[in-house]
Parts: sequence; structure tokens; C-alpha cells
Amino acid sequence: MPATAAVNASLPAPVSRSDDAGVVTLTLSRPAQRNSLSEAMMAALTAALAEVAADSSARAVVLAAEGPVYSAGHDLKEIQSHRADPDRGRAYFEDVLKRCATLMTAIVRLPQPVIAAVEGMATAAGCQLVASCDLAVAGEKARFCTPGVNIGLFCHTPMVALSRNLSRKHAMEMLLLGDWTEADDALRMGLVNRVVPAGEALASAQALARKIADKSQVPVKLGKAAFYAQVEMGLDDAYAYASRVMAENMLARDADEGISAVLAKRAAVWEDR
Amino acid sequence: MPATAAVNASLPAPVSRSDDAGVVTLTLSRPAQRNSLSEAMMAALTAALAEVAADSSARAVVLAAEGPVYSAGHDLKEIQSHRADPDRGRAYFEDVLKRCATLMTAIVRLPQPVIAAVEGMATAAGCQLVASCDLAVAGEKARFCTPGVNIGLFCHTPMVALSRNLSRKHAMEMLLLGDWTEADDALRMGLVNRVVPAGEALASAQALARKIADKSQVPVKLGKAAFYAQVEMGLDDAYAYASRVMAENMLARDADEGISAVLAKRAAVWEDR
Amino acid sequence: MPATAAVNASLPAPVSRSDDAGVVTLTLSRPAQRNSLSEAMMAALTAALAEVAADSSARAVVLAAEGPVYSAGHDLKEIQSHRADPDRGRAYFEDVLKRCATLMTAIVRLPQPVIAAVEGMATAAGCQLVASCDLAVAGEKARFCTPGVNIGLFCHTPMVALSRNLSRKHAMEMLLLGDWTEADDALRMGLVNRVVPAGEALASAQALARKIADKSQVPVKLGKAAFYAQVEMGLDDAYAYASRVMAENMLARDADEGISAVLAKRAAVWEDR
Repeated sequence: MPATAAVNASLPAPVSRSDDAGVVTLTLSRPAQRNSLSEAMMAALTAALAEVAADSSARAVVLAAEGPVYSAGHDLKEIQSHRADPDRGRAYFEDVLKRCATLMTAIVRLPQPVIAAVEGMATAAGCQLVASCDLAVAGEKARFCTPGVNIGLFCHTPMVALSRNLSRKHAMEMLLLGDWTEADDALRMGLVNRVVPAGEALASAQALARKIADKSQVPVKLGKAAFYAQVEMGLDDAYAYASRVMAENMLARDADEGISAVLAKRAAVWEDR
Repeated sequence: MPATAAVNASLPAPVSRSDDAGVVTLTLSRPAQRNSLSEAMMAALTAALAEVAADSSARAVVLAAEGPVYSAGHDLKEIQSHRADPDRGRAYFEDVLKRCATLMTAIVRLPQPVIAAVEGMATAAGCQLVASCDLAVAGEKARFCTPGVNIGLFCHTPMVALSRNLSRKHAMEMLLLGDWTEADDALRMGLVNRVVPAGEALASAQALARKIADKSQVPVKLGKAAFYAQVEMGLDDAYAYASRVMAENMLARDADEGISAVLAKRAAVWEDR
Repeated sequence: MPATAAVNASLPAPVSRSDDAGVVTLTLSRPAQRNSLSEAMMAALTAALAEVAADSSARAVVLAAEGPVYSAGHDLKEIQSHRADPDRGRAYFEDVLKRCATLMTAIVRLPQPVIAAVEGMATAAGCQLVASCDLAVAGEKARFCTPGVNIGLFCHTPMVALSRNLSRKHAMEMLLLGDWTEADDALRMGLVNRVVPAGEALASAQALARKIADKSQVPVKLGKAAFYAQVEMGLDDAYAYASRVMAENMLARDADEGISAVLAKRAAVWEDR
């Protein structure tokens, strides 16, 4: 990715990573560009997630952002710059959307849980990022929007994540009206798990990540993967699948240790720590 | 449909239509019959929706009703009158249910968004109408019910729409108990988007429809159709599908105009207005 | 099931049944063992449900429990006792999970509606029991938890039921954190239908069951079965299926009676009572 490399050479990376005993905080770090999901940002975040996926020391992830905008979604200037292409941009659009879907599903497929820590505005594909995370914490002034309908370009791909988090009428309200959704309404609709005082979303998300990181990673990783697999199945298939996964989980050393510890009323010692 | 024609000749049409600059208000106009979904009413509403679907000047639809009952569902007298048929009514029942499902899916498949404006009681297939709309506004005295279970005839087909709006236990509660659900509970459960003071549902729904009508119809129509298509897919298929639709949307003139307008901080001028 | 028989010979049965004019109350009766879903308990509950399924006098079911714990889920001592098996317990684990899934789907597939009456703690497969019921009433001090993640053994199979009741982020929050969910939050998330004063869950659930038992069982049984069948289908298939079921329902004697009674403003007399 020479473009990204070039950007990285002259600027701080679009995504910064900090680690604290298994809790990885990835921070979108282009506040002046409203953390838009430019090609460089998508490449950097996808690469950061791939590193996390392969990193056995990484146990839970917080996805945060610098500045007043969590993420403004696609970089509209980049999109417009390709309208002069011989194919009016079609190939570019298809490619950039493919990369965006790859990024979003990389969050869903990441072995580790991902918790969005949202302050400020999360719009379009930025809102999709939040919906794609396993959990989300919002500062009380955070706001959410799928405004594409206002600029001629419906938030079709954010819709995929949104409509798997919200009930149909709630999702349709955000998508068809393109209005702001305040943090409290996002909580009511199920887009976020917690609303905390402004400025505390990062600390709150990190505290949740810490709780998860202190558990055995055997159940965490098996469980996250199984969740998204079984949720798309019919009931009987889901039970057959989940029962197989649970039998495997029961055979793991940490399940033996965890159950033994409960029965003996002592603290468990996890192998994978 | 000679029966309908005969009715129309002697009475006001069961569904009236009024247009205001792209906002189409369809009003169920049989208050004395509690706007029941008689054969004539279903035919009239289905025909009105087909006209709207083919009308490029129609940009958003409000579905309202005259009188204290939004709609009481199927016309029970019509149903009972066919029990003397040689087949005890089977062919008639199958036909009337097919027409009802066609009506309900015509709302879902209508290119334009449909917003229910509910005052008073919406019961059985009348409640299904509300659930089938993309958005719904309720006056604070509106009430919802799937009472079939109380009269020996479970609300099986209303259940299809209801269970795609509400969580399972909420839907089951309405369907198994057949009790009234007040507007505030309908809001909490996701059956309606807004509760407004009594008597203001129509104006509120029309205001939402106005907002949608003032947007480019390219994203609105692509988005509504894509919503219901992708929501039935698995995650990967949904992303592949939505990405294709979004690339098409990006190539539309109004997406170019809308994004250019945002970048230039000017108002967009939609081609399709 | 000799083991069960042996237990039953020396102790009160793990599940007691009481009948009141069509309302069957099944009570988990091993408070000292926190009503854990031991082999004996699962066998007893599965057998009790099979009896109810075949009992035409049984019209609605309440699933209650003795003592401060509704159910603590699997019996961990039984699980640990099989780690010394030649296959480290694999065959046993697979078998016990199969029996558990059979029990949970027996609730879903039971012809009669099942209402959980929850006081105290419902954890792991105990929480799954609540999620698997059609309706649930909680005393205000009831608490819910899927704590497997804390002991190395993710609540994979409870997840199947939970993720079909709650929105994704709510389900993930319970499953990944393993924290207590209070009754009010369970209500907000859709895990239970009602929160009542502590100690009143049983009476409240029985009152709901009474309402259902006093209705014709034709729509109740057709409706429950159709609900879970159609909810897994796409919209068109669901309408085709539900329309077929509704036509059958219309042809039933009790639908004729119920509609006739409504039209004549008299009370219906159900044939199946």
C-alpha cells in the first residue's frame, strides 16, 4: 500500500495503538479530517485489526477516536475525485466499498471483542463502525446519524450493520430521515450499551475491556465467533452448532480449571494468561 | 371488481387520496364500518398503492384513517357469509387472505416510504397495516391489539408483520393475550416511531413525509428497496448486495450533485424533483 | 431412566406439577441444589413437558421454581465427574448438551404457551429456560446472568435462546461480561414481559396463564406453533405459510363460533373447553 506508506511517512499514522495488559486501544487519529474512512484510514485500521487478530497478547479491543468527530464516514473528496475516471468511477467505487465491507466484517470476525468508545459525532460509515462493534459505550453528548439520504447517497452499507442492531422501524427512521440520534435514544434503540458522562466513554470502554481481558480467552473467543455464526441459523441448526462448540469448550483446560475453582470456592488460574 | 365499482358508485370511495407537493395521503374512509379491510377496502387500498407506485410525482405516503378506529381488520361479516359455500368457505378464505398478503407486501414493496398516522384503535389486520409501514406515528390515545385469539381466530398473518417489528416476547404477548397495547408501550416495543398529542398524528406523519419528499428520491427509493432485501440475508451476502446497490447509487447524478454540494457548502439541486 | 427413578424413590420429584382448571404449574423443586439442571432435573422436566403436550386438559403452563434460585443451570459436579472418562468426558458432554437442547426446544415446540415465573436468580441454562419460554414474568428482585464466561465455559447454548430474544448488543453484553442483569433491565431488553413486586411473579404468571386457558385452544395452539415456524422465514414464505394456517383456523368450529359471537354481541362457547 504505497499510498498509505507515503502518508505514514509524513504524518502520524491514521490509527494509533496503545496496549495495557491485554487491552488494545485503537484510536482514529485524523481529527482534522473528522476521522473519515479515507483509503489511508481504512487501510490502517484493517491492518491494525489484522495485527490484533494475530497477537496472542491482545485480549480485548477498544475502538476510540481523537477529536469532536468519532468518524464522519467515507472521504467524500476521494470519492468525487474518481468521477473523472473513464468508467465514471465505477471500478473505484466498487473497490472502496469492498474494502469498507472487509473492514467492517473484520471487526465482527476479530477473535477478540471490540468495544466502541464514542464521544462526539458518528455518522454514515462512522455510525456503521459503532454498529459493527460487539459493544459500545457513548458519552452523553455523542450523536449518531446515517445522513446519506440527505446528500443523494443512501447509507446502504451502514444499513447492513444498523439493521442487525436496531428494530426495523428504528433503523428505517435513522436511514430515511437522516436526522441526529442522541445518545439516550441510541441506548433505547440498542445501538449502544451504556451512556456515560461526556468525556468518560474511553475510560468506561476500557474498564469493560479490562473485565473481558481478565477472563480466560478460551470462552471469550469461542463465544464471540459462535455468536455471529449461530445468530444467522434456524433454531435447530443453532442448537446443534452451539452444542458442538460448547462440548469443545467443556474439554478445554480452562473450563476444567474454571469449574473446579467455582466448586472449590477458589480463584481460577487461567492457562492462557 | 364489479362489487367495488358498485360500492364506489353509491358511496364515497373507501380510500381517499390527497396530494401535497409529492406527499400523498391515503385515508381509509369507512369510519362507520371501522375502516375494516373489507374486500372493497382492500381492493381500493391496493389499487391506490399501485397508482402511487407508478406515479413519479408521489414521493412519500401517509396512511391515515377517518374516525375513532384506524382499522378493525378483516370484515367479519364477509367472512361469515361464505360459511354456507359448498366448501365451507375454504376457497374464499384462501383468496381473501392472499389479497390481504398482497396488500401488506405492496406497502413493503412500494418504492416510496409509507408512514402510518394512527389515532384510535388499530386491531388485527389493522395493526398489521401499521406494522407493515416503514414508519409510524401514533396519537397518544392510539391503541393496538391483535385480538384474534379472543374470537377463535389467531392473528396469524398480522403476526408476520408484528414479529418482524417487535422482539419475540413482546410479539407473543400481544398475540397470545389479545390485550390492548397503549401508544407508549407500542413506542417502547418498536411498533411506532413517535407518540404525539392526540389528534396530531396526521400532521406529524405528514411532516416526516415532507422531509423525505424534499430529498432526492434516488437514495430514498434505492434505500427502501435494499433495506427489506438485505435484512433477510446473512451478513456476507448482505454486504455484497448492499455494496452493489451503493456503487450504483454513487454513479447516480444526484449522488454526484449531493456530494458536490456538501463539499462546496451549498444547497443541492435534485434532478428528480 | 433408572437414575431418575432411583432419585424419585428417595426424594420428592425434582419437578412438581399442580393443575388448576387447565393451568399447569410446573415447579422446579430442588432449592437446596439451586434447581440446577442436573440429569435428573432435565429428565423430569422433559418428561413433565411431554405429559403436558399429550394432555388435552392442559391449556397453559407456568414454569416456576422453589427457593431463592430459579435455576443455576447445568450441574457442574456432574460435568466434572466425567473428566475421568476414557474420552475425557466428550461423549458425556455431547449427550448432556443434546438433552439440554431437547428440553429447551420442547418448551418452544410445546403446543401450549409456557410462561416463566421468575423470582431470584436465573443463571446460565437457567436464564436460557426463561428465554425459551413464550412469556416471562419477573419479581422485581429477580436477576439474570450468563456467567459462563467467568468460569472458562461460555454460555454457548443459552446464547441461542438469548440472542433470539434480545438485540445483538444487549445479548453480547450479558454473554461477554457475565454480569448480573436486574429485572428492570431484563424488561427493557425484552427478556421478560412484566416486572411485578417481589413474590408476586407466580400469581402474575398464573393470571396470564388463566387468561390464555380461558380462550379457545384452537387459535392458541395453531398460533404458537406458527409463530416459531414463520419467524425463521423470509417475508413472502412467511405470508404464504401463515395464510395457509389462517385459512385452516378460519374453518375451525371455534372460529365460526367466536366470530358469530362477536357479531351477535354474545359470549362465545368454545368446543374444546
